[in-house]
Amino acid sequence: MALQDYKFTHFLVSSPTPFVAHVEINRPKKLNAFSEEVWLEFGRLFDRLSHDPEVRAVVLSGAGDRAFTAGLDVQSAGEGLTVSATKGADAARNAAVLRRHIAEFQACITSMEKCEKPVICVLHGISLGLAIDIACCADVRLAARGTRFAVKEVDIGLAADIGSLARLPRIVGSMSWVKDVCLSARDFSADEALAVGFVSRVLETKAAAVEAGLEMAARLATKSPVAVQGTKELLNHAKDNTIADSLRYTGVWNAAALQSGDFTAALQSGLTKKQPRFEKL
Amino acid sequence: MALQDYKFTHFLVSSPTPFVAHVEINRPKKLNAFSEEVWLEFGRLFDRLSHDPEVRAVVLSGAGDRAFTAGLDVQSAGEGLTVSATKGADAARNAAVLRRHIAEFQACITSMEKCEKPVICVLHGISLGLAIDIACCADVRLAARGTRFAVKEVDIGLAADIGSLARLPRIVGSMSWVKDVCLSARDFSADEALAVGFVSRVLETKAAAVEAGLEMAARLATKSPVAVQGTKELLNHAKDNTIADSLRYTGVWNAAALQSGDFTAALQSGLTKKQPRFEKL
Amino acid sequence: MALQDYKFTHFLVSSPTPFVAHVEINRPKKLNAFSEEVWLEFGRLFDRLSHDPEVRAVVLSGAGDRAFTAGLDVQSAGEGLTVSATKGADAARNAAVLRRHIAEFQACITSMEKCEKPVICVLHGISLGLAIDIACCADVRLAARGTRFAVKEVDIGLAADIGSLARLPRIVGSMSWVKDVCLSARDFSADEALAVGFVSRVLETKAAAVEAGLEMAARLATKSPVAVQGTKELLNHAKDNTIADSLRYTGVWNAAALQSGDFTAALQSGLTKKQPRFEKL
Amino acid sequence: MALQDYKFTHFLVSSPTPFVAHVEINRPKKLNAFSEEVWLEFGRLFDRLSHDPEVRAVVLSGAGDRAFTAGLDVQSAGEGLTVSATKGADAARNAAVLRRHIAEFQACITSMEKCEKPVICVLHGISLGLAIDIACCADVRLAARGTRFAVKEVDIGLAADIGSLARLPRIVGSMSWVKDVCLSARDFSADEALAVGFVSRVLETKAAAVEAGLEMAARLATKSPVAVQGTKELLNHAKDNTIADSLRYTGVWNAAALQSGDFTAALQSGLTKKQPRFEKL
Amino acid sequence: MALQDYKFTHFLVSSPTPFVAHVEINRPKKLNAFSEEVWLEFGRLFDRLSHDPEVRAVVLSGAGDRAFTAGLDVQSAGEGLTVSATKGADAARNAAVLRRHIAEFQACITSMEKCEKPVICVLHGISLGLAIDIACCADVRLAARGTRFAVKEVDIGLAADIGSLARLPRIVGSMSWVKDVCLSARDFSADEALAVGFVSRVLETKAAAVEAGLEMAARLATKSPVAVQGTKELLNHAKDNTIADSLRYTGVWNAAALQSGDFTAALQSGLTKKQPRFEKL
Amino acid sequence: MALQDYKFTHFLVSSPTPFVAHVEINRPKKLNAFSEEVWLEFGRLFDRLSHDPEVRAVVLSGAGDRAFTAGLDVQSAGEGLTVSATKGADAARNAAVLRRHIAEFQACITSMEKCEKPVICVLHGISLGLAIDIACCADVRLAARGTRFAVKEVDIGLAADIGSLARLPRIVGSMSWVKDVCLSARDFSADEALAVGFVSRVLETKAAAVEAGLEMAARLATKSPVAVQGTKELLNHAKDNTIADSLRYTGVWNAAALQSGDFTAALQSGLTKKQPRFEKL
Repeated sequence: MALQDYKFTHFLVSSPTPFVAHVEINRPKKLNAFSEEVWLEFGRLFDRLSHDPEVRAVVLSGAGDRAFTAGLDVQSAGEGLTVSATKGADAARNAAVLRRHIAEFQACITSMEKCEKPVICVLHGISLGLAIDIACCADVRLAARGTRFAVKEVDIGLAADIGSLARLPRIVGSMSWVKDVCLSARDFSADEALAVGFVSRVLETKAAAVEAGLEMAARLATKSPVAVQGTKELLNHAKDNTIADSLRYTGVWNAAALQSGDFTAALQSGLTKKQPRFEKL
Repeated sequence: MALQDYKFTHFLVSSPTPFVAHVEINRPKKLNAFSEEVWLEFGRLFDRLSHDPEVRAVVLSGAGDRAFTAGLDVQSAGEGLTVSATKGADAARNAAVLRRHIAEFQACITSMEKCEKPVICVLHGISLGLAIDIACCADVRLAARGTRFAVKEVDIGLAADIGSLARLPRIVGSMSWVKDVCLSARDFSADEALAVGFVSRVLETKAAAVEAGLEMAARLATKSPVAVQGTKELLNHAKDNTIADSLRYTGVWNAAALQSGDFTAALQSGLTKKQPRFEKL
Repeated sequence: MALQDYKFTHFLVSSPTPFVAHVEINRPKKLNAFSEEVWLEFGRLFDRLSHDPEVRAVVLSGAGDRAFTAGLDVQSAGEGLTVSATKGADAARNAAVLRRHIAEFQACITSMEKCEKPVICVLHGISLGLAIDIACCADVRLAARGTRFAVKEVDIGLAADIGSLARLPRIVGSMSWVKDVCLSARDFSADEALAVGFVSRVLETKAAAVEAGLEMAARLATKSPVAVQGTKELLNHAKDNTIADSLRYTGVWNAAALQSGDFTAALQSGLTKKQPRFEKL
Repeated sequence: MALQDYKFTHFLVSSPTPFVAHVEINRPKKLNAFSEEVWLEFGRLFDRLSHDPEVRAVVLSGAGDRAFTAGLDVQSAGEGLTVSATKGADAARNAAVLRRHIAEFQACITSMEKCEKPVICVLHGISLGLAIDIACCADVRLAARGTRFAVKEVDIGLAADIGSLARLPRIVGSMSWVKDVCLSARDFSADEALAVGFVSRVLETKAAAVEAGLEMAARLATKSPVAVQGTKELLNHAKDNTIADSLRYTGVWNAAALQSGDFTAALQSGLTKKQPRFEKL
Repeated sequence: MALQDYKFTHFLVSSPTPFVAHVEINRPKKLNAFSEEVWLEFGRLFDRLSHDPEVRAVVLSGAGDRAFTAGLDVQSAGEGLTVSATKGADAARNAAVLRRHIAEFQACITSMEKCEKPVICVLHGISLGLAIDIACCADVRLAARGTRFAVKEVDIGLAADIGSLARLPRIVGSMSWVKDVCLSARDFSADEALAVGFVSRVLETKAAAVEAGLEMAARLATKSPVAVQGTKELLNHAKDNTIADSLRYTGVWNAAALQSGDFTAALQSGLTKKQPRFEKL
Repeated sequence: MALQDYKFTHFLVSSPTPFVAHVEINRPKKLNAFSEEVWLEFGRLFDRLSHDPEVRAVVLSGAGDRAFTAGLDVQSAGEGLTVSATKGADAARNAAVLRRHIAEFQACITSMEKCEKPVICVLHGISLGLAIDIACCADVRLAARGTRFAVKEVDIGLAADIGSLARLPRIVGSMSWVKDVCLSARDFSADEALAVGFVSRVLETKAAAVEAGLEMAARLATKSPVAVQGTKELLNHAKDNTIADSLRYTGVWNAAALQSGDFTAALQSGLTKKQPRFEKL
């Protein structure tokens, strides 16, 4: 990864091991809260990681000790929400403005879900509201023990609209739990998140969680990128389609993917016990 | 809630705290079993709660100590099922009668899922067959420790048709468990229900479970009804739609919802530490 | 079951109790690995079980102590994959050949999902790659404690295409876990499989797990086949359809199913405490 | 049909031939416009026709010479629309009231689409706005030559919400024409309606069109009701589902329907050249 | 096409021009009616044409002057239908037998829709019932002027279940016309079929229609098989999917297809004005 | 419309009447063919028109007398296609590059479909390949008599992938015709396009067709933009969703839209016979 090219105001991007990008939300004094400027940059960053052949796995965490992100920067973004509905306009015209605003915001966060490379999200500290919307777009979620989670939107008088409500029912098995935390906006802990399957591993500290995320990313980065990226794509397709449609799509997808050299390289490496080398993707 | 207006034969409706309705299935001598008359009334009751501006959260439990509900009142309803297929008619004509009968029955129970206000279902004692169909339509499920659960229909020679089979795969994450309990009709306990995510909390006794349900309802009733009801609607929509469709629907929904005064009221209350007051809905 | 008629090269079929078929993958020296010949036979076998009125429940396990199945017989099948893409043809023509090959392979494994009778899959020993694709098509999954599971395909340079990626998101609630094991190809244990709901029960040994599977099958075989087979069909339908569509389909399905004699037989047997006898299906 | 039982304020119901119901919108002085009271009655009427065994086909037309219907009774219903949004409430609360209002109105008109018996809609004279919403719910559409059609809603400042926009794209093949008439609200003639397939026949006068509708209904009423009603149901299902889903649904539907006596009766009548008699449905 | 290998009892297969297969239904004395044996053979024939690299386009017509096909051979197949419901079994068990029977029958006819090569169906003479089901599975439909069409099933007391009702709403734009002909079972002419778009061309005689079909097939056979077969697949996919899903599938499909040599060959031939040669597929 | 702000290299943008934008593809010497640079600009242009409150209707035509567009600029874009597949990479890696390339191209053209304002496409002269993809994204299609249409892609060895195959089946009623023109790549005339409903009006000359388009746009621009834009959105939604989903979405949409002042303004203007004035949107 050509690190010097990744210049972003609100995000740190580093490459601790080959083919791994570590992205940190970098507004620690604001508890890593998101203003409009931040989410627009977030979208551009993940669009770029998606096509960067030097990147095979991404880890996302928050800078600083206190928060992954406290969510919306209500001061700036909240104002945005209100301002975006032009003063004096009727409710229908306000609705049009708000719809566009929400759609753009959603698209920026969805960029992470659409990123062709797997994304491991490491949650820690304060992880409220938008933190959940973002985490839902990651592939794998890890958490530090002390993380404070909440689908907080109800407490500011609105239904979460950047994706938590759309994605949680497909990410977690228990609808009773999903509705409980979404309707009540109550806090939940890392252990509760693990028990219901929202995260798949809990580590003792933020540091340990980030390290675990980077290790997993490093491991994924040694594998065939054709295989890894195909697996992400097909699992995302499966979430939204019938089994018959998924099987059909899988066949068409793999008809090209199986013509890579990675299959042979992987088999070879199994015999020779050497690490295979895979071409860029 | 104008309690005096809720006059139902088979259900008790009370309002223990402002904006909360407590509904009890009230045929304790019959183990709260459902005849056709009962489910027709059930549908009417939830249609009404759905639009009553005095109601912001509903708790459903069974009257008496023995049962949430033992399910279908086989004596009366079972006869109904057989009788509903006109004697002497051919199988196609019988099928038409049965289809209409099933559709009407399904619609009555589905009224609870469509109720715009969140419904917390407190399961306790005998909770068989139709008890599961009903619980699947609730938003949050709690249980008392001794509850005896079973998807009982296979044991009376039929596939559950009032919604358990349609909804369980979207409510619980483990299809292996779902198929186990549906195919075998075996009993399962509250702790097993908790472990697989069918219920999200187990309390020691029925009394404790009802209290926990009422507390949760009371808490939901203090929050913005625009936010709470929108959250329910969007989560229900998400269960049945692709992520892209849900995001689009969410944007349209919130474009109106964000124009409520609740957002401002909630933000204000955050600053002033006073309980916000929300207009009726 | 007319056992003598079930003559298959790679599968043992026995009937330990009435109406129960026990199918064993029978290539223990090859760790029960699947060549093309094996999966074609697998498809034919389950198509037949599906319509055999002497069969009401099926148990699938692997012969020998070492493996349920080690997955693809890479030596023969892998060659198949490469050979199937005609040497020298362009990528588009290779893709057509591969697409047909994958579709046929998928259809053979899907036969088990489409089998009208419930299938209990007992996993034990080595259970890699195709083992997961197959297990995903079963209704109930049990495991022996020492089972070594992995969605292994990424490690041979490809995305799993025989159904694991299409089905796991609908079988297990935690997408974070699903993506973790599919992207990393790491091993997971029976206890982990139980914790996330991939299997619904873990037994100490293969023998105990097979016995538990056969017992469950025996129990299912005593119940109304109209009820059991309808329940399987409706749960499979529900996985792929909206709730409204499932309810409509259920009504049409049960309009015929409720006209069986099993309802009466089951009710009778409840009164007389005798085991009901159900007609073949 | 027990005519004396059909007592409706805004609709005439007669039975010109056995098993045929002729429904006339009966507010000729108001150009058969619909107030809320009218559409609520419309819903109840078609729910009843749907299950009446004396009815096998329905014809819908408008009373008087001037109009099928001029659409919404803007004076009463339009006020309704405005009033229904409680004065002084915020836009989110107004939206909730409007949503319920629209849903109820849609459900009343949809009753005609869900009516199990085929409905032939005879359009004549003024046929604006709601006239199109209603006609879209019929099975067959005929028109008198002078009919004045328009999807008029845009001209009163709103998008048609009682079904024209949802159904026209599935009823007529040319999206360019659909968008033209819906966006421009321009008038179109019976011949244009025929050319694009919105109606399937044009007659010279209202009288001739009604007669043609009644003749078609009389013919349908002599046929197997199992066959006719099944055909309607399966075509409606097909409009909303994939081909694979439709074929599966068809198989389940006909598995009951083929067990009627109508198949034998129809074959017999083919041999004996006598009119078959079919049992009620 | 290695003609000598195509040995079928009820179908003639010839190859009038390179890469073109002409299939004739060959039971002229029975008006080309279909018994179970015929439709099973039909399925096998099209499965084979689908993968035969010597075939790039198929024309289907009926042998003899009188009929494309009169539909179901009611004598043999109709008996089949009745017999297939085991005598004395209850309605639920009969339904299971009928469901399997219908599913198998549907699958045989669907083979033509799934055939990877384009199929041109030439309709002529008597073309009733199953004739329409079959024609709906073709890609292009031509007709001779005197053809007598009817969706005849209602007249023998059943709803068409081999695909006409599932496919007509997606093949023809006017639902009013579709419902008219399906509900009434009335005859319609080639010109009417052309006017509503069911067929796209009418020729004066059967001979002229067959010739036109063969000419079109010959022309398609000179074009890139990658392009032609991809076009068929993508149009079939589009009929059943949203636009967004179709675009995504198209991208994956063409990512392999664009790597054929056909693109270059076609461009070259455009420059050199020589007929391009395409590799087999 | 602040014309001076619309500075595009390949498109002319003018505003002949208030609120109407006339867009002309402006590469007449290249027969208005599209290189990558052109389609990227096309996407940006329609994204901007979508949100410009000065625009209420758009007309698209080609500059010059010879062509609407001859389609892909094969010289530059075709090279692009080939080059985009990195030389020497394996087929799987080439496929990834092509997939991204196609997705970006599709998104640019789809911008016109997503444009919130109605788009009238005036086809004239040479209108091949990409011309059809583009026209399919418009709302209304008009044509000049001499227009030469063809879905030309098969003749350059590929399946159309920028949307014609995804959209034509939803735009035109006759699948037989759609498959004929897509599989054969044959030319068709404006009159044929009108007969099948691809265009909804044919004018004698390009000038007359452009004038007709501008007149229609001018008329739409006088109507309520809330009503017009809502109608476009709801019709587009309906193309991709079930009727029940469309009705639900419509209710949510109109719950905000009905709160505009346009309803009152339109009713007023009906009474006063004055042209209503609508606020910007």
